[in-house]
Amino acid sequence: MTNPVIAEVTRGGIVESRHRGAYAVADASGHIVAAEGAIAADMFPRSAVKAFQCLPIVESGAAERFGLTDEEIALCCASHNGEPAHLRVARALLAKAGNAEALYECGAHWPADEASRFALVKSGEACAAVHNNCSGKHAGMLALARQLGAAPHGYTRPDHPVQRLIASAMGSLCGIDLDGQPVGVDGCSVPTWAIPLRNLAIGFARFTKPDFAAAQRIIRAVRAHPFMVAGTGDFDTLIMEAVPRVFVKTGAEGVYCGCIPHAGLGIALKVDDGAARAAEVGMATVLAGLGVWTPEERAAISRFRHHELVNWRKLQVGELRGVDV
Amino acid sequence: MTNPVIAEVTRGGIVESRHRGAYAVADASGHIVAAEGAIAADMFPRSAVKAFQCLPIVESGAAERFGLTDEEIALCCASHNGEPAHLRVARALLAKAGNAEALYECGAHWPADEASRFALVKSGEACAAVHNNCSGKHAGMLALARQLGAAPHGYTRPDHPVQRLIASAMGSLCGIDLDGQPVGVDGCSVPTWAIPLRNLAIGFARFTKPDFAAAQRIIRAVRAHPFMVAGTGDFDTLIMEAVPRVFVKTGAEGVYCGCIPHAGLGIALKVDDGAARAAEVGMATVLAGLGVWTPEERAAISRFRHHELVNWRKLQVGELRGVDV
Repeated sequence: MTNPVIAEVTRGGIVESRHRGAYAVADASGHIVAAEGAIAADMFPRSAVKAFQCLPIVESGAAERFGLTDEEIALCCASHNGEPAHLRVARALLAKAGNAEALYECGAHWPADEASRFALVKSGEACAAVHNNCSGKHAGMLALARQLGAAPHGYTRPDHPVQRLIASAMGSLCGIDLDGQPVGVDGCSVPTWAIPLRNLAIGFARFTKPDFAAAQRIIRAVRAHPFMVAGTGDFDTLIMEAVPRVFVKTGAEGVYCGCIPHAGLGIALKVDDGAARAAEVGMATVLAGLGVWTPEERAAISRFRHHELVNWRKLQVGELRGVDV
Repeated sequence: MTNPVIAEVTRGGIVESRHRGAYAVADASGHIVAAEGAIAADMFPRSAVKAFQCLPIVESGAAERFGLTDEEIALCCASHNGEPAHLRVARALLAKAGNAEALYECGAHWPADEASRFALVKSGEACAAVHNNCSGKHAGMLALARQLGAAPHGYTRPDHPVQRLIASAMGSLCGIDLDGQPVGVDGCSVPTWAIPLRNLAIGFARFTKPDFAAAQRIIRAVRAHPFMVAGTGDFDTLIMEAVPRVFVKTGAEGVYCGCIPHAGLGIALKVDDGAARAAEVGMATVLAGLGVWTPEERAAISRFRHHELVNWRKLQVGELRGVDV
């Protein structure tokens, strides 16, 4: 089965590049309300399920015990840009649970935000684990280890109590036994279990249920602090600021997941080739196609379906756009 | 027509992402000796035809008049990393033809090489046009304008004598009238005319002819200085250093072109989705499949067909690999 083209890049009046992909939209009863492409194939959701990975932090009582704020919960769900506000919140979260930066197992990389990266370079400091886009999630996982009375060392291993609890929560939500699924190592060294788009969409639909207290807490936190989830200029932050009833999260290799709490819908999308640019406009296109918005919301979402491509002299050279399939 | 998968990314024992694409291999008589996918479709070759764009610089007598060295000719064919050696050669080339950096119309961006970029950031200087990966080509175009007695201003416009001469040379080589073709604006603001892969492969095959003096001069220059064409850690530089009988050049949006002078073959490849990572291993896979190498060369090329993917903690998480089609 060949997935359809969901995004394309134009230049000089023709299509220069094409991205194929698949997506599923589901409701909490498990009904697939819209889909294209191979939605039953195994795929790694990567960082798009950070909200699921955050569930045990709330459900275990760790969030309450350590007094986590909405900002800190939102940062647990983030692939952040390493901007000063992100570092401040990651360090506060670590400190509240009595954990040190030295316990991080996510590895170091330079901040994705250029101004923050250049400031760090000018300071002469090296990049550290706290700058890693996943440092909020890892601070949350370390808090969870503390809550469980488990050794912090090795908290990224698939057999550590932290990861076992996360796998159990995700598998239950998505209706799939993750022990039987392929498992990869993510960029930040935690396990990523393969979950088909169909199951991810159902999981995100269930995440919206009004009586799912832990999920409601996470949705409320992210809505209050969309900047924490990504940062300056990032798609997640921009679209959630523009349309607060949207809840979305990017994942590496062209994954996008999300939900629409007021409509009880979950969404999961994967670009075959792993391109983030296609996942962004593709997600906006899927969202815009759903009949659950006010005219103002639909107009706001539609602006994310395409954007001009400019070159180094700021000349417009083409367009990136989602394709209706 | 759906192009075949030419490269894939694995993680956790499964294929995580797939890249489709097309390629053509031709000889100088215009015969297609190997091909997959839509090789007659219009596409923009982007920077993969810098060697063609360099032809008029040699053929017009500009290279001789200004005494261009092999390093300078190689830099005309480069998408360089902005390393100190690249800047030195670009500035020397400008100076020889009496041109100033202020004449550049390529726009500015930070050096692609991290050490060079960080050194520039630490110095407090802004990035400039000379750091643009195309600054060698643009210095060559400015020298060509001087040689033609044309105004340097506007040398990037499609109707400027410099670009008219380049279009004529490329069209003639590839057997296509570029005046009838779609034309886009490249990242560095010069025109990029659409040329199907079939025609590009034939053009690169003709480029190898022993009696084509200007092309031989360019091939000799690039062979002598593969570092000039890209830089530290880059595929073009690495593969041409490992296998000196290969001549290849990357282009934006997943294009790769090249030729094998000793075998009289030209090659053109485009990844549908524009991914450079797929174009690199895809090009190595096409090269390795041709029966024109010594066993040592084939072994050296095959090492570029795949590489390990490691995460921020340097753990191996998967593999990027070209796919035989």
